[in-house]
Amino acid sequence: MTTHYLEDFAVGQKYATGSLRITPEEIKSFAAQFDPQPFHVDEVAAKDTFFRGVVASGWHTTALTMKLLVGGDLKPAGGIIGAGCDGILWPKPVYPGDELRAESEILEVRESNTRPTQGFIKVRTTTYNQRGEPVQIFVGNLIVPRRAAPQSTDKA
Amino acid sequence: MTTHYLEDFAVGQKYATGSLRITPEEIKSFAAQFDPQPFHVDEVAAKDTFFRGVVASGWHTTALTMKLLVGGDLKPAGGIIGAGCDGILWPKPVYPGDELRAESEILEVRESNTRPTQGFIKVRTTTYNQRGEPVQIFVGNLIVPRRAAPQSTDKA
Repeated sequence: MTTHYLEDFAVGQKYATGSLRITPEEIKSFAAQFDPQPFHVDEVAAKDTFFRGVVASGWHTTALTMKLLVGGDLKPAGGIIGAGCDGILWPKPVYPGDELRAESEILEVRESNTRPTQGFIKVRTTTYNQRGEPVQIFVGNLIVPRRAAPQSTDKA
Repeated sequence: MTTHYLEDFAVGQKYATGSLRITPEEIKSFAAQFDPQPFHVDEVAAKDTFFRGVVASGWHTTALTMKLLVGGDLKPAGGIIGAGCDGILWPKPVYPGDELRAESEILEVRESNTRPTQGFIKVRTTTYNQRGEPVQIFVGNLIVPRRAAPQSTDKA
């Protein structure tokens, strides 16, 4: 497993993930815990809502995208640690049975102004369904360690 | 239960939620499913990481904040339906045993340019721990239905 330090990242690099299928049971189970609204948990009631059927919670999509990322090729040394995000769009709903995968692109690489041992990368991660349609576009800011600087041997 | 249509929302309105406690078991269980990194699932390995101990996945915090919102006072007619978000910050980690609550403030109310039956509200939701420290600041854009216009009785 190759992990990447700040110096290894450059604007334009792309990273892929594997894929996973979201089952109807998972959608209901996640939503029952965290987002118990009719359009996530109840097929009958969902018909009379905005979505006209059961769809996954957007927070389920973010969580599954994180799972894809942790198993994917983008491997910052020290782990995937988000300071926050600049935005999320959910352009299409995620439906029961959809197969999801994600692609990340590095948008920015910068050193920290206050901590010489780390920096930040800005990453746009797009999650696609099995038809290649984007279901989530997410721009996140990750904290990434720099390579340890060589120790000085100067005794002065 | 009072639900709110677009016309009921105004900039500056604030909405509260109840509170909930995040247990060590929940942190590990969520992370094992969605974010299996050492600093979320393994107390011993977590000591050698950025966080120096186990903390909740940021996506666990978003999901729990959604749970608080669904049970809270902000009740758009048709449910809490996010088109996306303008940003998330996680200024402090969420630790095992933390007690979370959230407060939302309406930042913007606007009609849809394309769909006369709905509009959007921009809402900043801040999630606090038991010490009153913000652990998440989230600006979301929700789709909200307008009140049905009175039916015309004009037969012409």
